[in-house]
Amino acid sequence: MEGAATIHVDINCDLGEGFGVYRLGPDERLLKVVSSANVACGFHAGDPSIMRRTVGTARDCGAAVGAHPGYLDLVGFGRREMRVAPDEVEDMVIYQVGALAAMARAEGVRLAHVKAHGALYNQAARDPALAEALARAVAAVDRELILVGLPGSEILRAGLAAGLQVASEVFADRGYLADGRLAPRGGPGALVTDPVEVARRALLMVQEGKVVAVTGEEVAVKADTICVHGDSPGAAESAAALRSALEGAGLEVAPMRAPAAPAGGDA
Amino acid sequence: MEGAATIHVDINCDLGEGFGVYRLGPDERLLKVVSSANVACGFHAGDPSIMRRTVGTARDCGAAVGAHPGYLDLVGFGRREMRVAPDEVEDMVIYQVGALAAMARAEGVRLAHVKAHGALYNQAARDPALAEALARAVAAVDRELILVGLPGSEILRAGLAAGLQVASEVFADRGYLADGRLAPRGGPGALVTDPVEVARRALLMVQEGKVVAVTGEEVAVKADTICVHGDSPGAAESAAALRSALEGAGLEVAPMRAPAAPAGGDA
Amino acid sequence: MEGAATIHVDINCDLGEGFGVYRLGPDERLLKVVSSANVACGFHAGDPSIMRRTVGTARDCGAAVGAHPGYLDLVGFGRREMRVAPDEVEDMVIYQVGALAAMARAEGVRLAHVKAHGALYNQAARDPALAEALARAVAAVDRELILVGLPGSEILRAGLAAGLQVASEVFADRGYLADGRLAPRGGPGALVTDPVEVARRALLMVQEGKVVAVTGEEVAVKADTICVHGDSPGAAESAAALRSALEGAGLEVAPMRAPAAPAGGDA
Amino acid sequence: MEGAATIHVDINCDLGEGFGVYRLGPDERLLKVVSSANVACGFHAGDPSIMRRTVGTARDCGAAVGAHPGYLDLVGFGRREMRVAPDEVEDMVIYQVGALAAMARAEGVRLAHVKAHGALYNQAARDPALAEALARAVAAVDRELILVGLPGSEILRAGLAAGLQVASEVFADRGYLADGRLAPRGGPGALVTDPVEVARRALLMVQEGKVVAVTGEEVAVKADTICVHGDSPGAAESAAALRSALEGAGLEVAPMRAPAAPAGGDA
Repeated sequence: MEGAATIHVDINCDLGEGFGVYRLGPDERLLKVVSSANVACGFHAGDPSIMRRTVGTARDCGAAVGAHPGYLDLVGFGRREMRVAPDEVEDMVIYQVGALAAMARAEGVRLAHVKAHGALYNQAARDPALAEALARAVAAVDRELILVGLPGSEILRAGLAAGLQVASEVFADRGYLADGRLAPRGGPGALVTDPVEVARRALLMVQEGKVVAVTGEEVAVKADTICVHGDSPGAAESAAALRSALEGAGLEVAPMRAPAAPAGGDA
Repeated sequence: MEGAATIHVDINCDLGEGFGVYRLGPDERLLKVVSSANVACGFHAGDPSIMRRTVGTARDCGAAVGAHPGYLDLVGFGRREMRVAPDEVEDMVIYQVGALAAMARAEGVRLAHVKAHGALYNQAARDPALAEALARAVAAVDRELILVGLPGSEILRAGLAAGLQVASEVFADRGYLADGRLAPRGGPGALVTDPVEVARRALLMVQEGKVVAVTGEEVAVKADTICVHGDSPGAAESAAALRSALEGAGLEVAPMRAPAAPAGGDA
Repeated sequence: MEGAATIHVDINCDLGEGFGVYRLGPDERLLKVVSSANVACGFHAGDPSIMRRTVGTARDCGAAVGAHPGYLDLVGFGRREMRVAPDEVEDMVIYQVGALAAMARAEGVRLAHVKAHGALYNQAARDPALAEALARAVAAVDRELILVGLPGSEILRAGLAAGLQVASEVFADRGYLADGRLAPRGGPGALVTDPVEVARRALLMVQEGKVVAVTGEEVAVKADTICVHGDSPGAAESAAALRSALEGAGLEVAPMRAPAAPAGGDA
Repeated sequence: MEGAATIHVDINCDLGEGFGVYRLGPDERLLKVVSSANVACGFHAGDPSIMRRTVGTARDCGAAVGAHPGYLDLVGFGRREMRVAPDEVEDMVIYQVGALAAMARAEGVRLAHVKAHGALYNQAARDPALAEALARAVAAVDRELILVGLPGSEILRAGLAAGLQVASEVFADRGYLADGRLAPRGGPGALVTDPVEVARRALLMVQEGKVVAVTGEEVAVKADTICVHGDSPGAAESAAALRSALEGAGLEVAPMRAPAAPAGGDA
């Protein structure tokens, strides 16, 4: 039959961010909604047993599993910027991705993607040397891994240069500046809380590749995967509403890389 | 052709046991002497960058690389016994071995073996549940890995039961009890310091499969690999002397598994 | 004047057991009910900022503040037994109590007591060398600190021998064995969940100095302070019910040491 | 009698920077030469037992003991700049100084000074908010503590504003820029290695309050205390040579605050 092919989009969420006796976010419920799980690897959050359980639950829910490496800063949850040499970033990412890859293997899962966490994600988005270190690390562990980053970021550029597949990530619940960056938290329009508006923005980003900035301009964005936040109140309900809205509009929510087509590229 | 086949024996040493700015032992010199390196994996010692450098140096020196996982106890160097549930031991070993395996891959090396460190090694030697957890972890990461343990220990038993190759480890510079266990440190004959005597004992263990206990009895031991200690004064010189003595007696010092025969078993 | 003097009893609870972004237990609500707060000191839980907030809230609620030192085992929450040398236990307790004492000073509070956490508490209860190390540490920091322990434990014995005031701790929601020890978790009668029964047991322990063992015998216990658990569901409500029952029976719930009488001893 | 009063100057050194089995620097020999020990407090280096031993040895050698708090970054030795909120800096400094103060009390010593370590020292030198957080922390623990910082730094300014005594620190083995800052490592003249030249520079700084910049200008510096580095090769010998040169020129090498005159101010 003629007609447009189905548009695929991924919904990703940071998961497994507990540590020891601590828990963070409704992981089990989120894993029933998202298509990709970014699993913390023990540095900013996560411990070996939580990693393993999270991978197993993701597998049971049909979500793709990716690594979510961060700075070695548990008390700051990896959100504090640090001046780390690129070589050290490379090594610590190899370490974390390798640890999770082994845990995934133990659960019969192959890692699909890598998304850096918190301050590492933000610093690598704008610092070419860190972005290249991140890409080198991912390529060293497994050249099939998809590297996730902000559209226009150094991470995507470095990933492509390293021969990796990349995925462009958008945030439906965050405001954007006219230059495509996220509006700083605390500023006007930084957070979008109305679920209907979140869904509307998500559709505009996925279907038409654009978002309206807080200052009114239309900004072009590529939306391979939509990030939902697991640690806000009502996170699981919001994520479910977003998924329903996307599917109601005829989109297919699926991991960045379909298991049956490992070489395919949505980035 | 007539004549006995060459006897192979491995010399292993714990390496890469620094952390951050700290260094422990003359790694570069030891790596020129030993045939197998047990590389610390970040829990009792080691950090990602030290792990990577150690793997690279081992590769350049022709030494086989193995993982040396331990308890998460940096301040105690993994030497303090802990009551850790077997499932947690399994997960933390998967984590550490996986992290090192990725680092090895980044350096073009495939891990050859796993030897637990310190208190984990000692507890798993006598506790079947811990030994089985250790063996399950190793098998989950890579079924080709050789599991190293004391002769007669639960580690070797559990490794064989899990379908792994195992290697029996001896200590030429330590005294033995009549039942085959190591003489407790601090007791009479616990340490052998004379290099000539160390070499003599090593040869007896490798060539004849026996050692003389501190109480005079002959004890049967299987010696696939001889452990040398890297943190004692003169460690590199002692290790070199031991290797010379072994080679002088016609033995071949080589990794537990020769690179060209990955499926071979010396255990 | 005729008439019985008012009986005082303390209610203590472990608090401030979050870390970084993690939270554990309804601290604010519990602090309105208990008379003594055992504040985690950063080793098994707690970080400097959480410690400070917890001390400040306890002060505002009129609760006495004590230190709750534990093993350096965040991932195991200090609940895993470890073989630590007594000298190391002494030093790590001085470190933790000193850190919290400084935090308390910054908030205008003087530490009142010390109660070891988890595995350290349990091991020191039965091991004289650890108990003496704990008592030496407390005495080294401040000889006015009250040392809390199980009735009949090595901790109380060592505290008295070191010239410290001690407080005998009971658990109204736990079953007891005929020898005065707690019934092992998982066994019959180990947990008492009915609030009415918990209050009844508490009154019997405080007013008559006895508890009925799971096997029916009456066991003598000294009850200077009753521990309530902050991490069970409904913890704040249970604690409030217990306090109401105690006060309804004419007892005064107050810290182990009244601020106005620092040299007084209820132990 | 008329005539110049004896000039006092302090020599300080970072000490106790090992961790667990690791050692850094010849502490015992350095403690025979310096007059003030900056003792690591467990975050960037140091553990409770090393802290205690270092304090005890310093006491036996007659050196004053100060706290050397740093970022919680053992793998980076506290040298990596981090973006930490001022309130968190304040709390983590209270924690560390309090822990060492308790350890000192256990060894019969009262802390004399506080000098921040590494990246915290550098960032607080130029960031008023961090410097004020540092000064608040020190004042909260003990108002008699001397706060050490670079001449002209925000640390000294904030310390004075908080009512603390401050001490101005110079580096005889480092080059200076014309604006009084240290010449960046790696640049021309950044390091002075000739012991005779180091001593000459130290005398000029202490006696005449000036140093010659790498570009030739004379720069005014206040020299209450001279820092010697413990981790360079020959550190103990260099420090001894410096002390000899200072004493040979008639200066008295003594702690920043003489034990007999706790209210005295050399800052």
